[in-house]
Amino acid sequence: MKLLFIGDVVGSPGRKMVEQYLPKLKDKHKPNVIIINGENSAGGKGITGKIYRGFLEQGAHAVTLGNHAWDNRDIFEFIDNAKALVRPANFPSGAPGRGIVYVQIDQFEVAIINLQGRTFLPAIDCPFQKADELIAEASERTPIIFVDFHAEATSEKQAMGWYLDGRVSAVVGTHTHVQTADARILPKGTAYITDVGMTGPYDGILGVDREAVLRKFLTALPVRFEVTEGRTQLNAVMIDIDPKTGRANAIERIIINDDHPYFE
Amino acid sequence: MKLLFIGDVVGSPGRKMVEQYLPKLKDKHKPNVIIINGENSAGGKGITGKIYRGFLEQGAHAVTLGNHAWDNRDIFEFIDNAKALVRPANFPSGAPGRGIVYVQIDQFEVAIINLQGRTFLPAIDCPFQKADELIAEASERTPIIFVDFHAEATSEKQAMGWYLDGRVSAVVGTHTHVQTADARILPKGTAYITDVGMTGPYDGILGVDREAVLRKFLTALPVRFEVTEGRTQLNAVMIDIDPKTGRANAIERIIINDDHPYFE
Amino acid sequence: MKLLFIGDVVGSPGRKMVEQYLPKLKDKHKPNVIIINGENSAGGKGITGKIYRGFLEQGAHAVTLGNHAWDNRDIFEFIDNAKALVRPANFPSGAPGRGIVYVQIDQFEVAIINLQGRTFLPAIDCPFQKADELIAEASERTPIIFVDFHAEATSEKQAMGWYLDGRVSAVVGTHTHVQTADARILPKGTAYITDVGMTGPYDGILGVDREAVLRKFLTALPVRFEVTEGRTQLNAVMIDIDPKTGRANAIERIIINDDHPYFE
Amino acid sequence: MKLLFIGDVVGSPGRKMVEQYLPKLKDKHKPNVIIINGENSAGGKGITGKIYRGFLEQGAHAVTLGNHAWDNRDIFEFIDNAKALVRPANFPSGAPGRGIVYVQIDQFEVAIINLQGRTFLPAIDCPFQKADELIAEASERTPIIFVDFHAEATSEKQAMGWYLDGRVSAVVGTHTHVQTADARILPKGTAYITDVGMTGPYDGILGVDREAVLRKFLTALPVRFEVTEGRTQLNAVMIDIDPKTGRANAIERIIINDDHPYFE
Ligand SMILES: [Fe+2]
Ligand SMILES: [Fe+2]
Ligand SMILES: [Fe+2]
Ligand SMILES: [Fe+2]
Ligand SMILES: [Fe+2]
Ligand SMILES: [Fe+2]
Ligand SMILES: [Fe+2]
Ligand SMILES: [Fe+2]
Repeated sequence: MKLLFIGDVVGSPGRKMVEQYLPKLKDKHKPNVIIINGENSAGGKGITGKIYRGFLEQGAHAVTLGNHAWDNRDIFEFIDNAKALVRPANFPSGAPGRGIVYVQIDQFEVAIINLQGRTFLPAIDCPFQKADELIAEASERTPIIFVDFHAEATSEKQAMGWYLDGRVSAVVGTHTHVQTADARILPKGTAYITDVGMTGPYDGILGVDREAVLRKFLTALPVRFEVTEGRTQLNAVMIDIDPKTGRANAIERIIINDDHPYFE
Repeated sequence: MKLLFIGDVVGSPGRKMVEQYLPKLKDKHKPNVIIINGENSAGGKGITGKIYRGFLEQGAHAVTLGNHAWDNRDIFEFIDNAKALVRPANFPSGAPGRGIVYVQIDQFEVAIINLQGRTFLPAIDCPFQKADELIAEASERTPIIFVDFHAEATSEKQAMGWYLDGRVSAVVGTHTHVQTADARILPKGTAYITDVGMTGPYDGILGVDREAVLRKFLTALPVRFEVTEGRTQLNAVMIDIDPKTGRANAIERIIINDDHPYFE
Repeated sequence: MKLLFIGDVVGSPGRKMVEQYLPKLKDKHKPNVIIINGENSAGGKGITGKIYRGFLEQGAHAVTLGNHAWDNRDIFEFIDNAKALVRPANFPSGAPGRGIVYVQIDQFEVAIINLQGRTFLPAIDCPFQKADELIAEASERTPIIFVDFHAEATSEKQAMGWYLDGRVSAVVGTHTHVQTADARILPKGTAYITDVGMTGPYDGILGVDREAVLRKFLTALPVRFEVTEGRTQLNAVMIDIDPKTGRANAIERIIINDDHPYFE
Repeated sequence: MKLLFIGDVVGSPGRKMVEQYLPKLKDKHKPNVIIINGENSAGGKGITGKIYRGFLEQGAHAVTLGNHAWDNRDIFEFIDNAKALVRPANFPSGAPGRGIVYVQIDQFEVAIINLQGRTFLPAIDCPFQKADELIAEASERTPIIFVDFHAEATSEKQAMGWYLDGRVSAVVGTHTHVQTADARILPKGTAYITDVGMTGPYDGILGVDREAVLRKFLTALPVRFEVTEGRTQLNAVMIDIDPKTGRANAIERIIINDDHPYFE
């Protein structure tokens, strides 16, 4: 079973990259499951119902989120009915939406979990403890469990990878918007990468207008962050999972940009 | 001119990887300049005079540091005489040691700068402002300027890369201990990578014993972090610089571990 | 029912102030319940079994802690048998010790809870949620509930005060080591103060040697923090509680130092 | 010479307290100098030109700011012409406005400095170093130097107090919105208080609507912070300075609220 995961889609430049390359990636790799992190898909901040539905129409089976989940207030309108939308599961109980989603793919079920780290990020419930709970629940139904761990610190992400090794199919990191080169299969069979990277502008700073971010660092005065124009990139991973055992056989990084042009 | 930079060497496992592979990398790539980040080379915390001299004896032209620079108190003994040791330049004035070092390579001079970020790290002087000062100084002597920007946040690192594009030969990030896959030549000729990654244990968490780090995340109780045993890795970059202009022609990532075995 | 609470006792200067003035405060105010925050009582960092027992011998009915609870490793030896020692209740489950303690005073029972904030402090479990749980439990036994909320941010502390107003007898803040002037009875009958302040050196910085702290701020280099010598102070609050209803009638701040000398 | 300093004025409830009580305080205490911290005076966030001029018309000689200085964009319109407006001096050079202001009072000149801390606040230039610079400059003109140190951590504020003891007339802290009970004259003659507290709502959380702040702590979801209605308070200090030496003779805390009603 092949699972394609596309990293944080940023604004319309990111959405256009998905529109342009997802069909090609489907043709080339024939993924059985497609998951997109959409926490920045609406102008860099949050997601709207329209964008969410657009991702599903293009073939995504689920859309994950992160710390920017709630930035666009439209989410509070559609999240309750968005059955394939996964927000960080370790928000305090009572948060709208779901932290785990099950997707039926042929005769297999895939559990998709979104968790958010706490190092350098707001204090919410423990992602490790919440992972234990959700994996216990999911394991009753399926061995195929995918975790998007949205976190800042490499230590917390590696810790989650090792903590879940052998208990889930994959732990992929998101949030830093830079793909890491450490994709690997951990000893007990879990695919792992610290960060998948983002999909959107190639010449911004994490997708944001360079002048604004630099002015922020140089002056400490308030600036308005806008998604930047220009060249674009797509970052993703393709994971090969044994659907019987849920263990991963391989994880492959995908980068598409002017320095790494796409080959059919 | 070829410049080899080896990412944060962690403890004796990291030092052994340098001993084992630096000769091979020299044979294979014939680097003109070799720089090692040694902030974790003494048991994961700081560096000693003996380790520093060992790096030089093995061929390093300079050793850079970072937020762990001062962890091993031996540094205060030897830093004043360590002419090839570069600590973050943006510590408040009066800090011992140097933030910029010049190395003579054949007929060329290479300026090596170490800077430390402030996002999620202690408040020190502005790294961008300090970069301006040091580059103004270095540019009087040489167009070949190498910057090790030791920082946590991908935003701050990308910001520094773009800020210095066209003014230095390379901006390479360190500190997160995970190599990123975004090595590139920026439009005005500066080689850039968000993080080079570390050199040391392959199966720890950033080089540290997994059980300890996980216990920290799970219990929030104090734990003792030790460099872990077992398999090891080396992470580095090779940068090709035009010594006349100081601009970079290419940057290549180097990863050596059991999943990426070394080929002669 | 009168409850005396003494703020963070720092090192031997703090312990000496307790030895000297607790007898006087007992004579003068006749408190029925005495509680001491001892998180810094052993050399500024943590507490030992000997110091804990010393507090009890001097009349304390309970000793509360905070983020420094675990700094002196002796705690792991004696905490399981220390029935009047209260550590922050919202550490992840499995932490040694108790987050709530019940003390019998004449015919009344007093519940003593310790909670730790998360703003600018490590991510542990939610103190508000944990407060709900413990108050539900305690309310089954007694209306007299005392909360030491050990936290940095004034916002989080005021939030806890208002959150628990009418449900507990008192919410007193600790941790910042500076007494605040906002002691009051909230509208539904809970005594509140943002911080009780500390007991120990009067001329240090939070009890620590001034030169060391200033050097840290000025140089960002590592320094050794030691409890400072010289003049001392005691900070406390006296709370008058209706034992039938558990509501507070009054809260009075106590400051003893050279600028506020003790009057019999 | 008597100096009245009013702590962070929050929104219209705060401004009304100033309108109501500043005339009374002037009648009663006859202050020679009046300074108001106005960083939250426009709806809790920043300040407008109209509000600034209103403060001056009511008798303020200078208005200080803090981390919220730039929240209301009107500031960029009027700051250049606002000769009695003092923003944190340790913003990177190039920031609009002034970090030090001189006010002529009878035959005396008073220097008014605003500095911002860095602990738990954004990384800007070093406040201690900047204090050295500005005091060197001011001391050429006058021994009467007033410092509003806008900072979160009690350690940083006490450190500044001790650092400047004997070099300035007063170091008063702002930003936490809770008055501390530690007003004192330091050994070398500088008046000090960790925080003056705020002027505005009495039953909010730092002046903000309680429900919103509690929902933030309980849910971690986005909320809109509004200045709350209802009862109000004023927090201030009165400092008595020897205009010849610049040393302080006394510092007195002022609290006006329903629990501490104003007496003529
Ligand atoms: Fe993102
Ligand atoms: Fe994110
Ligand atoms: Fe490192
Ligand atoms: Fe580091
Ligand atoms: Fe304390
Ligand atoms: Fe504490
Ligand atoms: Fe304020
Ligand atoms: Fe503030």
